[in-house]
Amino acid sequence: MASGAAERVTAAVLIIGDEILSGRTQDTNLRDIARYLGTFGIDLAEARVVPDILPEIVDALNALRARYDYVVTTGGIGPTHDDITADAVAAAFGVELEEHPEILAMMQARWAGELNPARRRMARVPKGGALVKNPVQGPPGFTIGNVFVLAGVPAIMRGMLQDVGPRMRPGAVTISRTVRVEGSGEGAIAAPLEAVARAHPAMSLGSYPFYGQEGYGSNLVLRGRDPAEIEATVAELVGVLKAAGIANVREVEAS
Amino acid sequence: MASGAAERVTAAVLIIGDEILSGRTQDTNLRDIARYLGTFGIDLAEARVVPDILPEIVDALNALRARYDYVVTTGGIGPTHDDITADAVAAAFGVELEEHPEILAMMQARWAGELNPARRRMARVPKGGALVKNPVQGPPGFTIGNVFVLAGVPAIMRGMLQDVGPRMRPGAVTISRTVRVEGSGEGAIAAPLEAVARAHPAMSLGSYPFYGQEGYGSNLVLRGRDPAEIEATVAELVGVLKAAGIANVREVEAS
Repeated sequence: MASGAAERVTAAVLIIGDEILSGRTQDTNLRDIARYLGTFGIDLAEARVVPDILPEIVDALNALRARYDYVVTTGGIGPTHDDITADAVAAAFGVELEEHPEILAMMQARWAGELNPARRRMARVPKGGALVKNPVQGPPGFTIGNVFVLAGVPAIMRGMLQDVGPRMRPGAVTISRTVRVEGSGEGAIAAPLEAVARAHPAMSLGSYPFYGQEGYGSNLVLRGRDPAEIEATVAELVGVLKAAGIANVREVEAS
Repeated sequence: MASGAAERVTAAVLIIGDEILSGRTQDTNLRDIARYLGTFGIDLAEARVVPDILPEIVDALNALRARYDYVVTTGGIGPTHDDITADAVAAAFGVELEEHPEILAMMQARWAGELNPARRRMARVPKGGALVKNPVQGPPGFTIGNVFVLAGVPAIMRGMLQDVGPRMRPGAVTISRTVRVEGSGEGAIAAPLEAVARAHPAMSLGSYPFYGQEGYGSNLVLRGRDPAEIEATVAELVGVLKAAGIANVREVEAS
């Protein structure tokens, strides 16, 4: 660890939903959560996608919450029979579900005589849990222990997320810079890249090739927590690549 | 199980790459693989995203390959120092990596005097493995046991995938139909939906709400393997929803 480096804070994402595993729905929540947590210096360390099957959710949640500082779940908190996330979280923590008085009051105000049993399911929170604000539409999410339970609909998930970060212990923010190489393959880039990576073990250097209508090449991503070292490493990498005869090299905004 | 139902065939996807977990890259491979496997009647049952850290890849791969019929991995098979998937797969299977003569011959033809050590890394395949054709660009993927190891770049991954399905044992294809409800929330839909779901335990009925500029409502997805039962269930669901006073209901192409 470099001097002054803060302790690493980690999180995992658990995506709950048959619609992701069937390929029907393209998940975008993982990327949104990763980027959001990054602004608090929290590293997303693992993600899992599980179906709407109670023991599967319970097992994955227990594995992840034991291993990482935080877990964020998405999906399965609506009123229909396939929405079983609250049941699974309660089972994982070994507690009962109870109707949260604040959600029930909101619902009574909103639905009055139309507060049917299905809607009322959404008032259930595991005993000991607290609410996560929903500024968008519908009932809130909740949190218990180190787990945050959010909606699956992206617009609602993003709204709820705003109430999550401030409740986490922040880490040192990782800074990311991107050096883009066009018209050279990774085979030519690999040796100079590895030399720079070896000289800076506190940093993470990755190569992300692209290939398609935009041509081919690679985005070299440098990540670290020390601004001075990152600055120096970007310059070093550009110099080493050019010295290796790779002409089309430039720093770009993260793409 | 309904009479004539084939055995369920399952797969998991293991996405390997810091760039997905950092939020830099939006994964699309999971959805493409899920849809592709679906055409062979193979159910994607779980997915995980892990960083470019060898023991993490090994542990996840061993957990998934023990549990599901097949595992498809994406990412980490390039020539740079952060490409460690082949090493991890070899470690998971407890075998050595060896240079595959066919890949080496391709590379010698392609690169001749420029076949540097980095490019040569991509010729390494775990002992006992076989190749997965790459019709797009660069060296092939490989398969060992029940694991298929593909590139992370989407265009290349999709190309390799064409050589995967025919090598898997097919299952009974799941048929999916979508009934779209607009202007009614899930709270109103839940009871009729659950009644239909209970009457058809061999089918899976899910509700996927939408909310945004397009308005709000829910896509009700019916999935099953018996064409006659699916047809009947779609009609039953539409009838039950209309009887419950939900007016804006229609079947749509899967969206």
